[in-house]
Amino acid sequence: MNQSNLTADIANFVTHLECSKTGQEIPAGTVQNLSPDGAPILVRYDLDRVKKALTKEKLAARPTDLWRYRELLPVSAASHIVSLGEDMTPLIPLDNSLGSNVIVKDEGRLPTGSFKARGLVMAVSMAKELGLKRLAMPTNGNAGAAMAAYARRGGMEAYIFCPDDTPEVNVREIALQGGKVWRVNGLINDCGKIVADGEQPMGWFNLSTLKEPYRIEGKKTMGLELVEQLGWDVPDVIFYPTGGGTGLIGMWKAFDELEQIGFIGSKRPRMVAVQATGCAPIVDAWEKGLDHAPLWENAHTVAAGIRVPIAIGDYLILEAVRDSGGFAIAVEDEAIIEAQIHIGNEDGLLLCPEGAATAAAYSQALEQGLINTSDRAVLFNCGNGLKYPMPPADASIDRHQPIDWSAIASV
Amino acid sequence: MNQSNLTADIANFVTHLECSKTGQEIPAGTVQNLSPDGAPILVRYDLDRVKKALTKEKLAARPTDLWRYRELLPVSAASHIVSLGEDMTPLIPLDNSLGSNVIVKDEGRLPTGSFKARGLVMAVSMAKELGLKRLAMPTNGNAGAAMAAYARRGGMEAYIFCPDDTPEVNVREIALQGGKVWRVNGLINDCGKIVADGEQPMGWFNLSTLKEPYRIEGKKTMGLELVEQLGWDVPDVIFYPTGGGTGLIGMWKAFDELEQIGFIGSKRPRMVAVQATGCAPIVDAWEKGLDHAPLWENAHTVAAGIRVPIAIGDYLILEAVRDSGGFAIAVEDEAIIEAQIHIGNEDGLLLCPEGAATAAAYSQALEQGLINTSDRAVLFNCGNGLKYPMPPADASIDRHQPIDWSAIASV
Repeated sequence: MNQSNLTADIANFVTHLECSKTGQEIPAGTVQNLSPDGAPILVRYDLDRVKKALTKEKLAARPTDLWRYRELLPVSAASHIVSLGEDMTPLIPLDNSLGSNVIVKDEGRLPTGSFKARGLVMAVSMAKELGLKRLAMPTNGNAGAAMAAYARRGGMEAYIFCPDDTPEVNVREIALQGGKVWRVNGLINDCGKIVADGEQPMGWFNLSTLKEPYRIEGKKTMGLELVEQLGWDVPDVIFYPTGGGTGLIGMWKAFDELEQIGFIGSKRPRMVAVQATGCAPIVDAWEKGLDHAPLWENAHTVAAGIRVPIAIGDYLILEAVRDSGGFAIAVEDEAIIEAQIHIGNEDGLLLCPEGAATAAAYSQALEQGLINTSDRAVLFNCGNGLKYPMPPADASIDRHQPIDWSAIASV
Repeated sequence: MNQSNLTADIANFVTHLECSKTGQEIPAGTVQNLSPDGAPILVRYDLDRVKKALTKEKLAARPTDLWRYRELLPVSAASHIVSLGEDMTPLIPLDNSLGSNVIVKDEGRLPTGSFKARGLVMAVSMAKELGLKRLAMPTNGNAGAAMAAYARRGGMEAYIFCPDDTPEVNVREIALQGGKVWRVNGLINDCGKIVADGEQPMGWFNLSTLKEPYRIEGKKTMGLELVEQLGWDVPDVIFYPTGGGTGLIGMWKAFDELEQIGFIGSKRPRMVAVQATGCAPIVDAWEKGLDHAPLWENAHTVAAGIRVPIAIGDYLILEAVRDSGGFAIAVEDEAIIEAQIHIGNEDGLLLCPEGAATAAAYSQALEQGLINTSDRAVLFNCGNGLKYPMPPADASIDRHQPIDWSAIASV
């Protein structure tokens, strides 16, 4: 239900913005990209006051969109909310294919068909709150689609730059949702450079991953929702497709905030960063025990959403993975495609390649003894499988000819 | 939330099946396609008992998937439910493009990306309840995708026949979700003939639109949800993209049942059947005052989902339209495309062509004085816009060259 108006009278609990590296405080309401030290910014709340203001019972009575968590979100007035109906996404157990202990959180059901909607609805709503009129970002596709949709809905301009091999469906949806979109002969970091270069001449605000404070707050709601859906419990392990890592960082922040307001205890899920073998900078850094992940050269994978050669929040991802007792794991493209077919065929659930990567990683981790079948595992299917190429099916039949039913039966 | 287990202990209130033409009763639990008189079958409930068993308060406390309406649904045990997370779909006002009185119910957010999931989750769950193992249907794409997904999830075989110009995305998703799919050189009625012919030799159960009792019960939930979302009120007018018409018939049945259990009064929305000028049998029959709509020759429209040349439930559609004081209206393909672009650009909402047809019909009806801007109108976007071809966007930029920002600004 799109009833964010029902949470209209909820107070705002933001105290300040904070540099994720130095802890330096920046006043709430500042229009800011990175911190003065060039690091991602985290939004901080008065969690003691939230603890007094919010109860599980209050939450239970609210509409099921992500705005139910308003006390833990940065938007200060309901009138700034630019919504397309961000309803809670379902948990779907993979009974037939991987077992009933494996649950998919199906983020493909969000507006614009991906979890990018969570981050962008928050960033664009805050852009509206802060009076910004022109937004820009680099994208591998889904983030740009979400930004275009919310920006136009909020009456803002959207400038979007994507690698020239971005799937046609993404480029077209961006344009149809009113975004101005350019294909760039390069990867997402090359597109990011163009957006950064254009900040002065174009006067746009840069919404690049982790280069503004609010997308992480939107992605955080994945963790809030998941825990509420599990009856205020955490799963044993979370497999997360990791490109820029905003969602992983956001969920980790969510669990911490939930503990501080007394909604959960100190138990945490093991956070698993899933990447593709063709682009695995975080896995490489994790294996080598590094805090930062150097640029991955010649990045390639069928899972375009996790083809991110360098992540500005690398140390935050690695920290969450380590602190949670989790791990980083890379899967082959072949395993991704196999997992997609297996789960589609057996459970009728169409995963996107990045979601299928988490399923492949689950099986691989099981095989390597990193997890057990008794672990309650959550896989994040970050996008709607319909947005991606699928293997062809090419059986045909001539209605003018007598039909050979035995041939049909043997397919 | 996929928590259908929480409604596990709800009793079943089905009394019998009923021929929609003669009223002849058929015992509940009979495996039946059409009635003995060749007409669609309606499921009947003991609404007096439902009235005593169900309250609005009880409903409000339940999970937000369509199984919350279990007392008004045919499935007799929660263990028969084959679910992929059929969560309530959001209502999205078109503030920027058509005005805040115009609300889209975005059915593209359902499993497999269309409202067909509602009908098929019910029909396949009932197939499981009745012990069926092999299902078949003709489809223009989305229904087949939903059937394949639910059938495989329920451990059944799915045989699907579609016109040979069915969009590739549909054929592929059906196959990837484990369905056996054939392209047929004909239209959906030709595919329907193949499915009918195969009933004996193949032993499959025919799930064609309105040729089994339960899809209509699933589609009915659109009406139940809508009224609950509007605070147990009906809108003034509903624009519904009409092919086989199951949803329109189902919603009309839902309103009647809701009145009988005391949840709403006698007020009804005006039901508007929207078709394309290239395939408008219902509009033609409505204008001529007929009870049945003859086969439409040379059917064609960009909105493939409403390219249905003949509808077995034609008289039920026409009856609901007439009884509601509504009308049937046909729109040109050009108007459909224009509406899709306009709403995408202004409101960031990507409609499917059939959903865009309802928006075009709204504007046309307004122009013709059939409705007023003060009417609260609900448009049904029956599928996810991402499943459909979109106009191309082809701006590109060379990262190796200095960027001409003034050229970017002028796009």
